[in-house]
Amino acid sequence: MKSYRKELWVNVPSRRGFVNITREVERCLAESGITEGLALVNAMHITASVFINDNESGLHADYEAWLEALAPFDASPQRYAHNRTGEDNADAHMKRQIMGREVVVAVTDGKLDFGPWEQIFYGEFDGRRRKRVLVKIIGE
Amino acid sequence: MKSYRKELWVNVPSRRGFVNITREVERCLAESGITEGLALVNAMHITASVFINDNESGLHADYEAWLEALAPFDASPQRYAHNRTGEDNADAHMKRQIMGREVVVAVTDGKLDFGPWEQIFYGEFDGRRRKRVLVKIIGE
Amino acid sequence: MKSYRKELWVNVPSRRGFVNITREVERCLAESGITEGLALVNAMHITASVFINDNESGLHADYEAWLEALAPFDASPQRYAHNRTGEDNADAHMKRQIMGREVVVAVTDGKLDFGPWEQIFYGEFDGRRRKRVLVKIIGE
Repeated sequence: MKSYRKELWVNVPSRRGFVNITREVERCLAESGITEGLALVNAMHITASVFINDNESGLHADYEAWLEALAPFDASPQRYAHNRTGEDNADAHMKRQIMGREVVVAVTDGKLDFGPWEQIFYGEFDGRRRKRVLVKIIGE
Repeated sequence: MKSYRKELWVNVPSRRGFVNITREVERCLAESGITEGLALVNAMHITASVFINDNESGLHADYEAWLEALAPFDASPQRYAHNRTGEDNADAHMKRQIMGREVVVAVTDGKLDFGPWEQIFYGEFDGRRRKRVLVKIIGE
Repeated sequence: MKSYRKELWVNVPSRRGFVNITREVERCLAESGITEGLALVNAMHITASVFINDNESGLHADYEAWLEALAPFDASPQRYAHNRTGEDNADAHMKRQIMGREVVVAVTDGKLDFGPWEQIFYGEFDGRRRKRVLVKIIGE
Protein backbone atom coordinates (compact mmCIF):
# COMPACT_ATOMS: atom_id res chain seq x y z
CA MET A 1 0.00 0.00 0.00
CA LYS A 2 1.18 3.50 -0.88
CA SER A 3 0.17 6.60 1.00
CA TYR A 4 0.47 10.29 0.17
CA ARG A 5 -0.13 13.44 2.21
CA LYS A 6 -0.22 17.09 1.34
CA GLU A 7 -1.53 20.29 2.90
CA LEU A 8 -3.13 22.87 0.61
CA TRP A 9 -3.21 26.48 1.85
CA VAL A 10 -6.23 28.70 1.21
CA ASN A 11 -6.71 32.37 2.07
CA VAL A 12 -10.20 33.74 1.49
CA PRO A 13 -10.01 37.54 1.86
CA SER A 14 -13.65 37.89 3.00
CA ARG A 15 -15.45 36.20 5.89
CA ARG A 16 -17.14 33.67 3.61
CA GLY A 17 -16.43 32.23 0.18
CA PHE A 18 -16.07 29.11 -1.94
CA VAL A 19 -12.85 28.09 -3.69
CA ASN A 20 -12.60 25.39 -6.36
CA ILE A 21 -9.70 23.11 -5.34
CA THR A 22 -10.29 20.32 -7.88
CA ARG A 23 -7.13 21.07 -9.91
CA GLU A 24 -4.95 21.10 -6.77
CA VAL A 25 -6.33 17.74 -5.65
CA GLU A 26 -5.74 16.33 -9.15
CA ARG A 27 -2.14 17.53 -8.96
CA CYS A 28 -1.75 15.77 -5.61
CA LEU A 29 -3.09 12.57 -7.12
CA ALA A 30 -0.66 12.76 -10.06
CA GLU A 31 2.21 13.42 -7.63
CA SER A 32 1.20 10.44 -5.46
CA GLY A 33 1.55 7.91 -8.28
CA ILE A 34 -1.49 6.10 -6.84
CA THR A 35 -3.82 4.67 -9.47
CA GLU A 36 -6.35 2.67 -7.38
CA GLY A 37 -7.53 3.69 -3.95
CA LEU A 38 -9.29 6.38 -1.95
CA ALA A 39 -8.57 10.10 -1.60
CA LEU A 40 -9.65 11.93 1.57
CA VAL A 41 -9.87 15.73 1.33
CA ASN A 42 -10.77 17.53 4.56
CA ALA A 43 -10.75 20.99 6.08
CA MET A 44 -8.21 21.10 8.93
CA HIS A 45 -10.20 23.95 10.50
CA ILE A 46 -13.57 23.63 12.20
CA THR A 47 -15.19 26.71 10.64
CA ALA A 48 -14.62 25.51 7.08
CA SER A 49 -15.89 22.75 4.81
CA VAL A 50 -14.78 20.62 1.92
CA PHE A 51 -17.67 19.51 -0.28
CA ILE A 52 -18.47 18.37 -3.80
CA ASN A 53 -21.01 20.19 -5.90
CA ASP A 54 -21.48 22.35 -8.98
CA ASN A 55 -19.02 24.97 -10.28
CA GLU A 56 -21.75 27.58 -10.86
CA SER A 57 -21.57 31.05 -9.32
CA GLY A 58 -25.35 31.46 -9.04
CA LEU A 59 -25.55 28.29 -6.97
CA HIS A 60 -22.74 29.52 -4.75
CA ALA A 61 -24.67 32.76 -4.13
CA ASP A 62 -27.71 30.62 -3.29
CA TYR A 63 -25.67 28.55 -0.81
CA GLU A 64 -24.39 31.74 0.82
CA ALA A 65 -27.92 33.14 1.31
CA TRP A 66 -29.35 29.78 2.37
CA LEU A 67 -26.66 29.09 4.98
CA GLU A 68 -26.99 32.63 6.32
CA ALA A 69 -30.75 32.05 6.78
CA LEU A 70 -30.21 28.68 8.51
CA ALA A 71 -27.39 29.90 10.80
CA PRO A 72 -27.11 33.71 10.76
CA PHE A 73 -23.86 35.48 11.58
CA ASP A 74 -24.29 37.31 14.89
CA ALA A 75 -21.20 38.45 16.77
CA SER A 76 -23.21 39.53 19.81
CA PRO A 77 -23.15 37.35 22.94
CA GLN A 78 -26.98 37.18 22.96
CA ARG A 79 -27.72 34.67 20.23
CA TYR A 80 -24.83 32.22 20.55
CA ALA A 81 -23.21 31.04 23.80
CA HIS A 82 -19.99 30.37 21.86
CA ASN A 83 -19.71 34.10 21.19
CA ARG A 84 -19.52 34.78 24.93
CA THR A 85 -16.00 33.28 24.87
CA GLY A 86 -14.61 36.19 22.86
CA GLU A 87 -15.26 34.46 19.53
CA ASP A 88 -17.66 35.79 16.90
CA ASN A 89 -17.86 32.71 14.69
CA ALA A 90 -20.50 30.38 16.20
CA ASP A 91 -22.48 30.62 12.96
CA ALA A 92 -19.44 29.35 11.03
CA HIS A 93 -19.34 26.16 13.13
CA MET A 94 -22.96 25.51 12.14
CA LYS A 95 -22.60 26.31 8.46
CA ARG A 96 -19.66 23.91 8.34
CA GLN A 97 -21.82 21.05 9.72
CA ILE A 98 -24.39 21.52 6.94
CA MET A 99 -21.77 21.60 4.18
CA GLY A 100 -19.58 18.89 5.76
CA ARG A 101 -15.93 18.56 6.84
CA GLU A 102 -14.63 16.18 4.22
CA VAL A 103 -15.10 14.23 1.03
CA VAL A 104 -13.82 10.77 0.16
CA VAL A 105 -13.28 10.27 -3.56
CA ALA A 106 -12.59 7.01 -5.39
CA VAL A 107 -9.33 6.85 -7.34
CA THR A 108 -9.57 4.72 -10.50
CA ASP A 109 -6.98 4.45 -13.28
CA GLY A 110 -5.05 7.32 -11.72
CA LYS A 111 -8.02 9.75 -11.87
CA LEU A 112 -10.53 11.17 -9.41
CA ASP A 113 -13.49 8.93 -10.26
CA PHE A 114 -16.14 11.62 -10.74
CA GLY A 115 -19.56 11.99 -12.31
CA PRO A 116 -19.93 14.64 -15.04
CA TRP A 117 -20.36 17.72 -12.81
CA GLU A 118 -18.53 16.86 -9.61
CA GLN A 119 -15.99 19.47 -8.46
CA ILE A 120 -14.34 19.82 -5.05
CA PHE A 121 -14.81 23.08 -3.14
CA TYR A 122 -13.34 24.59 -0.03
CA GLY A 123 -16.08 26.44 1.86
CA GLU A 124 -14.85 29.22 4.11
CA PHE A 125 -17.15 30.56 6.84
CA ASP A 126 -14.64 32.52 8.95
CA GLY A 127 -11.92 33.67 6.59
CA ARG A 128 -9.44 36.51 6.25
CA ARG A 129 -6.55 34.29 7.30
CA ARG A 130 -4.60 31.36 5.90
CA LYS A 131 -6.11 27.95 6.47
CA ARG A 132 -5.29 24.42 5.47
CA VAL A 133 -6.91 21.53 3.61
CA LEU A 134 -5.50 18.03 4.04
CA VAL A 135 -5.23 15.64 1.09
CA LYS A 136 -4.51 12.04 2.06
CA ILE A 137 -4.48 9.34 -0.59
CA ILE A 138 -4.02 5.63 0.03
CA GLY A 139 -3.89 2.80 -2.48
CA GLU A 140 -1.57 1.31 -5.05
CA MET B 1 -4.45 -4.44 -1.73
CA LYS B 2 -7.49 -5.30 -3.83
CA SER B 3 -9.82 -2.73 -5.30
CA TYR B 4 -13.28 -3.04 -6.83
CA ARG B 5 -15.47 -0.56 -8.73
CA LYS B 6 -19.04 -0.69 -9.92
CA GLU B 7 -21.66 1.80 -11.06
CA LEU B 8 -25.25 1.21 -9.98
CA TRP B 9 -27.98 2.81 -12.09
CA VAL B 10 -31.07 4.34 -10.50
CA ASN B 11 -34.13 5.85 -12.17
CA VAL B 12 -36.59 7.57 -9.86
CA PRO B 13 -39.74 8.33 -11.90
CA SER B 14 -40.70 11.36 -9.77
CA ARG B 15 -38.69 14.47 -8.91
CA ARG B 16 -37.83 13.19 -5.44
CA GLY B 17 -37.63 9.78 -3.80
CA PHE B 18 -35.57 7.39 -1.70
CA VAL B 19 -34.34 3.99 -2.93
CA ASN B 20 -32.89 1.29 -0.69
CA ILE B 21 -29.64 0.14 -2.34
CA THR B 22 -28.31 -2.02 0.52
CA ARG B 23 -28.77 -5.32 -1.34
CA GLU B 24 -26.96 -4.01 -4.44
CA VAL B 25 -24.01 -2.82 -2.37
CA GLU B 26 -23.91 -6.21 -0.60
CA ARG B 27 -23.81 -7.91 -4.00
CA CYS B 28 -20.90 -5.66 -5.00
CA LEU B 29 -19.04 -6.62 -1.83
CA ALA B 30 -19.58 -10.33 -2.47
CA GLU B 31 -18.39 -9.89 -6.06
CA SER B 32 -15.27 -8.01 -4.92
CA GLY B 33 -13.99 -10.88 -2.78
CA ILE B 34 -12.78 -8.26 -0.27
CA THR B 35 -13.20 -9.29 3.37
CA GLU B 36 -11.42 -6.48 5.26
CA GLY B 37 -11.41 -2.85 4.16
CA LEU B 38 -13.56 0.17 3.39
CA ALA B 39 -16.48 0.60 1.00
CA LEU B 40 -17.24 4.05 -0.43
CA VAL B 41 -20.73 4.55 -1.87
CA ASN B 42 -21.39 7.96 -3.46
CA ALA B 43 -23.85 9.69 -5.72
CA MET B 44 -22.13 10.58 -9.01
CA HIS B 45 -24.64 13.42 -9.48
CA ILE B 46 -24.76 16.64 -7.51
CA THR B 47 -28.51 16.75 -6.97
CA ALA B 48 -28.62 13.35 -5.25
CA SER B 49 -27.42 11.81 -1.99
CA VAL B 50 -26.28 8.52 -0.58
CA PHE B 51 -27.00 8.20 3.13
CA ILE B 52 -27.55 5.62 5.86
CA ASN B 53 -30.69 5.63 7.93
CA ASP B 54 -33.87 3.70 8.70
CA ASN B 55 -35.92 1.67 6.21
CA GLU B 56 -39.23 3.13 7.39
CA SER B 57 -41.67 4.80 4.99
CA GLY B 58 -43.06 7.21 7.59
CA LEU B 59 -39.57 8.54 8.25
CA HIS B 60 -38.97 8.94 4.52
CA ALA B 61 -42.17 11.01 4.27
CA ASP B 62 -40.89 13.10 7.18
CA TYR B 63 -37.54 13.64 5.44
CA GLU B 64 -39.34 14.71 2.27
CA ALA B 65 -41.46 17.31 4.13
CA TRP B 66 -38.56 18.49 6.27
CA LEU B 67 -36.17 18.98 3.34
CA GLU B 68 -38.88 20.78 1.38
CA ALA B 69 -39.33 23.18 4.32
CA LEU B 70 -35.57 23.80 4.65
CA ALA B 71 -34.95 24.25 0.90
CA PRO B 72 -38.23 24.61 -1.01
CA PHE B 73 -38.51 23.72 -4.70
CA ASP B 74 -39.01 26.91 -6.67
CA ALA B 75 -38.37 26.87 -10.43
CA SER B 76 -38.80 30.64 -10.74
CA PRO B 77 -35.70 32.83 -11.20
CA GLN B 78 -36.70 34.97 -8.19
CA ARG B 79 -35.74 32.78 -5.26
CA TYR B 80 -32.59 31.06 -6.52
CA ALA B 81 -29.86 32.60 -8.69
CA HIS B 82 -29.02 29.12 -9.99
CA ASN B 83 -32.46 28.96 -11.59
CA ARG B 84 -31.62 32.00 -13.74
CA THR B 85 -29.27 29.75 -15.73
CA GLY B 86 -32.16 27.76 -17.22
CA GLU B 87 -32.05 25.17 -14.43
CA ASP B 88 -34.92 24.59 -12.00
CA ASN B 89 -33.10 22.45 -9.46
CA ALA B 90 -31.28 24.80 -7.05
CA ASP B 91 -33.31 23.33 -4.17
CA ALA B 92 -31.98 19.86 -5.05
CA HIS B 93 -28.36 21.03 -4.64
CA MET B 94 -29.25 22.18 -1.11
CA LYS B 95 -31.22 19.11 -0.10
CA ARG B 96 -28.27 16.99 -1.22
CA GLN B 97 -25.89 18.90 1.12
CA ILE B 98 -28.10 18.16 4.13
CA MET B 99 -28.42 14.45 3.33
CA GLY B 100 -24.79 14.09 2.14
CA ARG B 101 -22.99 12.86 -0.98
CA GLU B 102 -21.49 9.64 0.27
CA VAL B 103 -21.10 7.03 2.97
CA VAL B 104 -18.00 5.09 3.93
CA VAL B 105 -18.77 1.68 5.43
CA ALA B 106 -16.39 -0.68 7.20
CA VAL B 107 -15.98 -4.13 5.65
CA THR B 108 -15.35 -6.87 8.22
CA ASP B 109 -15.37 -10.63 7.61
CA GLY B 110 -16.74 -10.03 4.12
CA LYS B 111 -19.82 -8.12 5.36
CA LEU B 112 -20.90 -4.47 5.55
CA ASP B 113 -20.15 -3.84 9.23
CA PHE B 114 -23.48 -2.34 10.26
CA GLY B 115 -25.41 -1.61 13.43
CA PRO B 116 -28.86 -3.22 13.74
CA TRP B 117 -30.87 -0.71 11.67
CA GLU B 118 -28.39 0.71 9.21
CA GLN B 119 -29.49 0.62 5.55
CA ILE B 120 -28.05 2.50 2.58
CA PHE B 121 -30.34 4.79 0.60
CA TYR B 122 -30.07 6.73 -2.61
CA GLY B 123 -31.82 10.08 -2.18
CA GLU B 124 -33.05 11.64 -5.42
CA PHE B 125 -33.92 15.34 -5.49
CA ASP B 126 -34.08 15.93 -9.25
CA GLY B 127 -35.18 12.67 -10.79
CA ARG B 128 -37.04 11.42 -13.84
CA ARG B 129 -33.84 10.31 -15.53
CA ARG B 130 -31.18 7.62 -15.09
CA LYS B 131 -28.44 8.43 -12.63
CA ARG B 132 -25.45 6.62 -11.20
CA VAL B 133 -24.09 5.60 -7.81
CA LEU B 134 -20.44 4.63 -7.51
CA VAL B 135 -19.35 1.72 -5.31
CA LYS B 136 -15.60 1.58 -4.66
CA ILE B 137 -14.20 -1.00 -2.26
CA ILE B 138 -10.58 -1.31 -1.20
CA GLY B 139 -8.98 -3.84 1.12
CA GLU B 140 -7.93 -7.45 1.16
CA MET C 1 -2.49 -4.02 4.49
CA LYS C 2 -3.44 -4.13 8.16
CA SER C 3 -6.94 -3.63 9.45
CA TYR C 4 -8.28 -2.96 12.94
CA ARG C 5 -11.82 -2.89 14.34
CA LYS C 6 -13.23 -1.87 17.68
CA GLU C 7 -16.63 -0.95 19.08
CA LEU C 8 -16.80 1.88 21.62
CA TRP C 9 -19.80 1.94 23.95
CA VAL C 10 -21.47 5.20 24.94
CA ASN C 11 -24.35 5.79 27.35
CA VAL C 12 -25.74 9.32 27.42
CA PRO C 13 -28.10 9.56 30.43
CA SER C 14 -30.27 12.27 28.84
CA ARG C 15 -32.07 12.31 25.49
CA ARG C 16 -29.42 14.45 23.85
CA GLY C 17 -25.76 15.15 24.50
CA PHE C 18 -22.25 15.34 23.03
CA VAL C 19 -19.37 13.14 24.17
CA ASN C 20 -15.72 13.74 23.28
CA ILE C 21 -14.34 10.39 22.04
CA THR C 22 -10.99 11.64 20.71
CA ARG C 23 -8.91 9.90 23.41
CA GLU C 24 -10.67 6.56 22.82
CA VAL C 25 -10.05 6.77 19.07
CA GLU C 26 -6.39 7.63 19.72
CA ARG C 27 -6.12 4.56 21.95
CA CYS C 28 -7.60 2.43 19.15
CA LEU C 29 -5.03 3.81 16.73
CA ALA C 30 -2.15 3.05 19.11
CA GLU C 31 -3.53 -0.49 19.62
CA SER C 32 -3.82 -1.02 15.85
CA GLY C 33 -0.13 -0.44 15.20
CA ILE C 34 -1.12 1.31 11.96
CA THR C 35 1.01 4.35 11.11
CA GLU C 36 -0.22 5.30 7.60
CA GLY C 37 -3.82 4.94 6.45
CA LEU C 38 -7.41 5.98 7.08
CA ALA C 39 -9.56 5.74 10.21
CA LEU C 40 -13.34 5.53 9.87
CA VAL C 41 -15.37 6.41 12.99
CA ASN C 42 -19.14 6.00 12.66
CA ALA C 43 -22.25 5.81 14.79
CA MET C 44 -23.74 2.30 14.55
CA HIS C 45 -27.15 3.76 15.41
CA ILE C 46 -29.30 5.90 13.15
CA THR C 47 -30.32 8.50 15.75
CA ALA C 48 -26.73 9.43 16.59
CA SER C 49 -23.81 11.16 14.89
CA VAL C 50 -20.05 11.18 14.87
CA PHE C 51 -18.60 14.55 13.90
CA ILE C 52 -15.49 16.69 14.26
CA ASN C 53 -15.69 20.14 15.74
CA ASP C 54 -14.67 22.27 18.72
CA ASN C 55 -14.41 21.10 22.34
CA GLU C 56 -16.26 24.14 23.69
CA SER C 57 -19.35 23.80 25.88
CA GLY C 58 -20.93 27.06 24.70
CA LEU C 59 -20.79 25.84 21.11
CA HIS C 60 -22.35 22.53 22.15
CA ALA C 61 -25.22 24.43 23.79
CA ASP C 62 -25.58 26.40 20.55
CA TYR C 63 -25.70 23.18 18.51
CA GLU C 64 -28.38 21.79 20.83
CA ALA C 65 -30.60 24.88 20.45
CA TRP C 66 -29.97 25.16 16.70
CA LEU C 67 -30.76 21.50 15.97
CA GLU C 68 -33.88 21.72 18.12
CA ALA C 69 -35.04 24.72 16.05
CA LEU C 70 -34.32 22.95 12.73
CA ALA C 71 -35.94 19.63 13.75
CA PRO C 72 -37.94 19.96 16.97
CA PHE C 73 -38.60 17.02 19.24
CA ASP C 74 -42.30 16.16 19.07
CA ALA C 75 -43.46 12.75 20.29
CA SER C 76 -47.02 13.30 19.06
CA PRO C 77 -48.18 11.51 15.90
CA GLN C 78 -49.26 14.84 14.35
CA ARG C 79 -45.96 16.35 13.26
CA TYR C 80 -43.96 13.29 12.20
CA ALA C 81 -45.29 10.22 10.38
CA HIS C 82 -42.46 8.16 11.90
CA ASN C 83 -43.95 8.78 15.34
CA ARG C 84 -47.16 7.01 14.27
CA THR C 85 -45.22 3.74 14.38
CA GLY C 86 -44.89 3.86 18.18
CA GLU C 87 -41.55 5.68 18.02
CA ASP C 88 -41.00 9.19 19.39
CA ASN C 89 -37.61 9.90 17.81
CA ALA C 90 -38.26 11.19 14.26
CA ASP C 91 -36.50 14.44 15.19
CA ALA C 92 -33.37 12.46 16.15
CA HIS C 93 -33.17 10.92 12.65
CA MET C 94 -33.13 14.45 11.22
CA LYS C 95 -30.66 15.94 13.66
CA ARG C 96 -28.33 13.06 12.84
CA GLN C 97 -28.42 13.89 9.11
CA ILE C 98 -27.32 17.47 9.78
CA MET C 99 -24.45 16.45 12.06
CA GLY C 100 -23.49 13.38 9.97
CA ARG C 101 -23.02 9.65 10.56
CA GLU C 102 -19.27 9.33 10.28
CA VAL C 103 -15.87 10.92 9.96
CA VAL C 104 -12.86 9.66 8.02
CA VAL C 105 -9.55 10.79 9.49
CA ALA C 106 -6.09 10.54 7.92
CA VAL C 107 -3.53 8.53 9.87
CA THR C 108 0.04 9.87 9.48
CA ASP C 109 3.11 8.81 11.47
CA GLY C 110 0.86 6.83 13.82
CA LYS C 111 -1.28 9.87 14.77
CA LEU C 112 -4.74 11.17 13.86
CA ASP C 113 -3.72 13.83 11.34
CA PHE C 114 -5.65 16.77 12.76
CA GLY C 115 -5.69 20.54 12.49
CA PRO C 116 -5.20 22.49 15.74
CA TRP C 117 -8.78 22.33 17.08
CA GLU C 118 -10.20 19.13 15.62
CA GLN C 119 -11.79 16.79 18.16
CA ILE C 120 -14.12 13.84 17.53
CA PHE C 121 -17.56 13.87 19.15
CA TYR C 122 -20.36 11.40 19.50
CA GLY C 123 -23.68 13.23 19.14
CA GLU C 124 -26.61 11.54 20.85
CA PHE C 125 -30.15 12.52 19.87
CA ASP C 126 -32.12 9.65 21.43
CA GLY C 127 -30.15 8.52 24.45
CA ARG C 128 -30.73 6.93 27.83
CA ARG C 129 -29.42 3.58 26.63
CA ARG C 130 -26.10 2.04 25.60
CA LYS C 131 -25.08 2.60 22.01
CA ARG C 132 -22.06 1.81 19.88
CA VAL C 133 -19.50 3.65 17.78
CA LEU C 134 -17.43 1.68 15.27
CA VAL C 135 -13.74 2.41 14.75
CA LYS C 136 -12.24 0.79 11.65
CA ILE C 137 -8.66 1.59 10.66
CA ILE C 138 -6.91 0.35 7.53
CA GLY C 139 -3.35 0.95 6.41
CA GLU C 140 0.16 -0.15 7.22
